Amino acid sequence: MTTQEVPAVRERVHTWGDPLATAAAGRDVDGLSFLQRMAAGEVAPPPIATTLGFDVREVEHGRVVFAMEPAEFHFNPIGSVHGGVLATLLDSAMGCAVHSALPAGARYTSLDISVRFLRAVGTGSGPVRCEGVLVHLGGRTATAEARLTDGAGRLCATATTTCMIFRPGR
Amino acid sequence: MTTQEVPAVRERVHTWGDPLATAAAGRDVDGLSFLQRMAAGEVAPPPIATTLGFDVREVEHGRVVFAMEPAEFHFNPIGSVHGGVLATLLDSAMGCAVHSALPAGARYTSLDISVRFLRAVGTGSGPVRCEGVLVHLGGRTATAEARLTDGAGRLCATATTTCMIFRPGR
Amino acid sequence: MTTQEVPAVRERVHTWGDPLATAAAGRDVDGLSFLQRMAAGEVAPPPIATTLGFDVREVEHGRVVFAMEPAEFHFNPIGSVHGGVLATLLDSAMGCAVHSALPAGARYTSLDISVRFLRAVGTGSGPVRCEGVLVHLGGRTATAEARLTDGAGRLCATATTTCMIFRPGR
Amino acid sequence: MTTQEVPAVRERVHTWGDPLATAAAGRDVDGLSFLQRMAAGEVAPPPIATTLGFDVREVEHGRVVFAMEPAEFHFNPIGSVHGGVLATLLDSAMGCAVHSALPAGARYTSLDISVRFLRAVGTGSGPVRCEGVLVHLGGRTATAEARLTDGAGRLCATATTTCMIFRPGR
Repeated sequence: MTTQEVPAVRERVHTWGDPLATAAAGRDVDGLSFLQRMAAGEVAPPPIATTLGFDVREVEHGRVVFAMEPAEFHFNPIGSVHGGVLATLLDSAMGCAVHSALPAGARYTSLDISVRFLRAVGTGSGPVRCEGVLVHLGGRTATAEARLTDGAGRLCATATTTCMIFRPGR
Repeated sequence: MTTQEVPAVRERVHTWGDPLATAAAGRDVDGLSFLQRMAAGEVAPPPIATTLGFDVREVEHGRVVFAMEPAEFHFNPIGSVHGGVLATLLDSAMGCAVHSALPAGARYTSLDISVRFLRAVGTGSGPVRCEGVLVHLGGRTATAEARLTDGAGRLCATATTTCMIFRPGR
Repeated sequence: MTTQEVPAVRERVHTWGDPLATAAAGRDVDGLSFLQRMAAGEVAPPPIATTLGFDVREVEHGRVVFAMEPAEFHFNPIGSVHGGVLATLLDSAMGCAVHSALPAGARYTSLDISVRFLRAVGTGSGPVRCEGVLVHLGGRTATAEARLTDGAGRLCATATTTCMIFRPGR
Repeated sequence: MTTQEVPAVRERVHTWGDPLATAAAGRDVDGLSFLQRMAAGEVAPPPIATTLGFDVREVEHGRVVFAMEPAEFHFNPIGSVHGGVLATLLDSAMGCAVHSALPAGARYTSLDISVRFLRAVGTGSGPVRCEGVLVHLGGRTATAEARLTDGAGRLCATATTTCMIFRPGR
């Protein structure tokens, strides 16, 4: 194969479902059940998940794991996965870890994320795994942390978050 | 048009150029010139920029502005743009603000980002604008901050970062 | 003077007023009036202010300035002012910047602080000045940022915070 | 005892040793040995430790525990321990956790701290305990995290940090 055969322009098609349907499936259901249904493929993932190519793998009370295969379309100008893509996985894992501990009717929103980048992720990193864990669950706020590791188990990024909780009838 | 005509599955095609070509264009050039060439369309944007649909609009020494049109494929399960997408814009704007102040041969890497989410961004928010500004430039590290505003000029998110600087011959 | 005259052990006395009296003076008063009374010496500063030797200098709506003379009793094991002392000033300036924008009856609490250290502060730094500014004031949360500069005006540390707001009758 | 007997003004005396002696004791010694000597009382603690009344209790490779008895002189205007005091403990525990893993001749400096406040600490909280743990040790940077708990073991604050490492002959 000659270098001319390497296409100068790459192309990718991605699809997603109606986000309102996913949002509706989450109403009136406790967070753990909702996320378990998503992991089982019974609820469509959010659009951003197929846009970036990540999905939820494990769900339990206070702990959620996401996975993603690093690809060229994730790259920053320096030739590695953009930190914002890693931040998206970390934010998702932490938010879902909080969500997994909420009763039906409660909602949450991330107030902030703090992300530390420890090792570059590239196409040679193997599939990355991102585990979010609930740290503190209070009446009005919750905090969580997450770790992202590469295919060899090496730590690539860590994060923490504070979420605001809206409980029904409060 | 009836509701049946709303497709259950949406589809999008995105393309990107060879990231190695972009990376090569950045070597041996000062950061400001490189980013100005990218803003002028003379250098291909990094793959993540077309994956998520954002681009660089203004570049000067220590200050870079990105813009993005919020779309459904950015959405989280709650029906708004995923915080990680905003983090990607904020990280890009801050990293480029640092890069714009670096001489030829110097490189940088983000050690961390701290992002605060102030207002949800949706398809009704209008195009968002994200301005990154250099705060401190030292020998080994630099810091920057960024603000993301919606089409009406309302503040939606803020961020700060510390980057490590690698200077040639050091 | 010989080196023997340098005492091996240093001693300092600090005093403070009843913190409940200060807390009581803040009830039923809007934040700006309360802080202006503190700056005028009509309300005792909080105990931590005299413990560490800092005080409030300027107060206006959404902006508060603190000042401190760096001293040996602030030092970490490396011979400069401990980062936690700078964090205390930054946290105070940001919290008061939020407080200065709150009506009577409203309360606030810091959910988090993110602090970046840019330059070591020592006894030769001259008096440091720490300015906190309100960035976002919402119904349930507010954010602020702060900058700490040395006697020569050089930036030594920056910080951001999110505070939770408790409004009366809500 | 009548309320008149409660003194309006409280007073405290604190002492500290020559910080240069402590700094000198740390030179040419690996971090673990230095911190173990400090825990054993063979090296004077840094001035800030006696100013705020905290001390090191446990030291091992990559893990350090500090303790402090909350007191009125730590208070903010709202009648609880100032967040900056907690930040000082968290920063100390994280910095020392990094230091404990460094060889003789290497130095470190904190680039930033990110602190989350989960529960107010007061004089009724009992002695607080702050454990710092090394998360990542690289050639040029290290990260650590810390948790601060009250006398009943309840989580009051968490933190993360990135430190820059200066290795000898590099």
